[in-house]
Amino acid sequence: MQLNTQIKLAETPTGTPEPKHFAVHNEAIPDIENGEFLSKTLYLSLDPYMRGQIAGRHISGRVDPGDILRGEAICEVIDTKHPEFAVGDIVSYFAGWQKFSKSDGQQVSKIDSRITPSSLALGILGMPGLTAYAGLIDLGEPKAGDVLVVSAATGGVGSMVGQIGKIKGCRVVGIAGSAEKCKWAVENANFDVCLNYREDDLPTALDKACPDGIDIYFDNVGGEILETVMEKLSLGARVILCGLMAQYNQDERLPGTNPANIIRSRATVRGMVVYDHFHKQKDFVEDVLNWLDDGLITYREDVSEGIENAAESFCRLMKGQNFGKTIIKVA
Amino acid sequence: MQLNTQIKLAETPTGTPEPKHFAVHNEAIPDIENGEFLSKTLYLSLDPYMRGQIAGRHISGRVDPGDILRGEAICEVIDTKHPEFAVGDIVSYFAGWQKFSKSDGQQVSKIDSRITPSSLALGILGMPGLTAYAGLIDLGEPKAGDVLVVSAATGGVGSMVGQIGKIKGCRVVGIAGSAEKCKWAVENANFDVCLNYREDDLPTALDKACPDGIDIYFDNVGGEILETVMEKLSLGARVILCGLMAQYNQDERLPGTNPANIIRSRATVRGMVVYDHFHKQKDFVEDVLNWLDDGLITYREDVSEGIENAAESFCRLMKGQNFGKTIIKVA
Repeated sequence: MQLNTQIKLAETPTGTPEPKHFAVHNEAIPDIENGEFLSKTLYLSLDPYMRGQIAGRHISGRVDPGDILRGEAICEVIDTKHPEFAVGDIVSYFAGWQKFSKSDGQQVSKIDSRITPSSLALGILGMPGLTAYAGLIDLGEPKAGDVLVVSAATGGVGSMVGQIGKIKGCRVVGIAGSAEKCKWAVENANFDVCLNYREDDLPTALDKACPDGIDIYFDNVGGEILETVMEKLSLGARVILCGLMAQYNQDERLPGTNPANIIRSRATVRGMVVYDHFHKQKDFVEDVLNWLDDGLITYREDVSEGIENAAESFCRLMKGQNFGKTIIKVA
Repeated sequence: MQLNTQIKLAETPTGTPEPKHFAVHNEAIPDIENGEFLSKTLYLSLDPYMRGQIAGRHISGRVDPGDILRGEAICEVIDTKHPEFAVGDIVSYFAGWQKFSKSDGQQVSKIDSRITPSSLALGILGMPGLTAYAGLIDLGEPKAGDVLVVSAATGGVGSMVGQIGKIKGCRVVGIAGSAEKCKWAVENANFDVCLNYREDDLPTALDKACPDGIDIYFDNVGGEILETVMEKLSLGARVILCGLMAQYNQDERLPGTNPANIIRSRATVRGMVVYDHFHKQKDFVEDVLNWLDDGLITYREDVSEGIENAAESFCRLMKGQNFGKTIIKVA
């Protein structure tokens, strides 16, 4: 009798996971009831976000010891009591790390027959591809001539970001972790340049590759590479935070603002400098004068008299000891 | 003879500036030539960004030992050889820390006569006010019912952000550094709540004040307060980075992503989660299939055979040893 081979989490890893943290388990192939189908797994997708599930800190949920690992798969329906799925249908769903699985059809997609091999529905025509497509086009707003930097440049998401960037007319600079990956990015995937962060001094290499700054950064890694690229943004840059490869294996949170918070909340974080907003001056003065008239605005000034006292007043301000707008009455 | 009293930087401070870092200097009142006017300073604005100028790291330029401190002032024209400025005109410009100054009229604004006292043109009706107005309305996009958190809540910018937020129908939570400031924010400036970060445990106090998360955060401080608030953003939150009070006195850069980079570049940083973008699925598949047909997209799969090898393959992926989209061929 054929069995269903499954991979379960044996132990929650600390740091980088090793094969010993996983266990092979065999059990009977499940029976199906009305409204269900049985499928065999053709292809299983492995993705970095799974490290976050194992750590119990991914938005899609957690995997504990004894649980089957989760994962999206391309499956072929081999038995069915579901009216919408026929034997032979090729579908994708979160079937997990196992040879056979059943489903009630919820959150199952049939694979477009034009997608061949069907494994592409896990890659450039699946979630990594959609991530790159929607992330770059909708959040990155690429324009012809923009300088686009993408990390994990040969991964499922990164390689699509770079290639879509080229289609949109960007100059594309990849960051990857080996000379072989960088070679592929430039020779096969149309990147203009690809920097090897394990060999090159990344700040220097980025300056050379992007002398006029970076207009779009599509980040799949977080950590030090994110910090380095953020030093080189051009005016009005767009940064898409999409992955945390550098953090997935970390048990302790890195110091500083955690990009995971921005990803989790799909936040928009923007830099504000008033010099860009002087065109609002007239509206601003009219509105505030009206609000003052209506009693909707109050204010407090922290006034010292005499230019000689400016230094002392400034020092109080820098210790947070002022109260209200700090002003020196000079004459 | 009356002299022009000026305040110059005596010494570049390390850490929090002290009065000893500044020096009083007296010299003759300047003569004016054709196309210039002479003015006496009525009010001088002191602002935290000046700390960055002294450190040589502000976008508006640097102040070195021996230089007059820079600063925006309200001035009265007392002598003129400039056709557009008459004696008695009240103007604002970057006159610096001194009693008298001359100007060729470039980047000088005449003060709207409805602004009384004219010192308000340095505060709620000046740059801090415009910063709050444009930053909150254009970048924060406040909607009625939004939870708005603002740090340095009683400062020139923060107090206006909170009050404009109330006008726009937000629930406004301030963060300030003393009980007295918090009392003023709530009792005078219409804030719903104000948290004293020196007394309250800020993470707990924020949870209590914003049980459903934070929709808009207007940050004037950076540092630890920024990190704490970022943990509590709600879905689709907007964060406006506008000041770095917590960092201005630091000589060494804090670890982690430096918010100064986002401010300097006026960048937009966004979190990307593919689950929000499934409405693009159809466009995505059509575009990518066309691009594949046109030879514009290539791909690389890192395929291992057999579900038993999933764990090993995943461990390679987490070490960055994969090359291309990682897939397990199961059947």
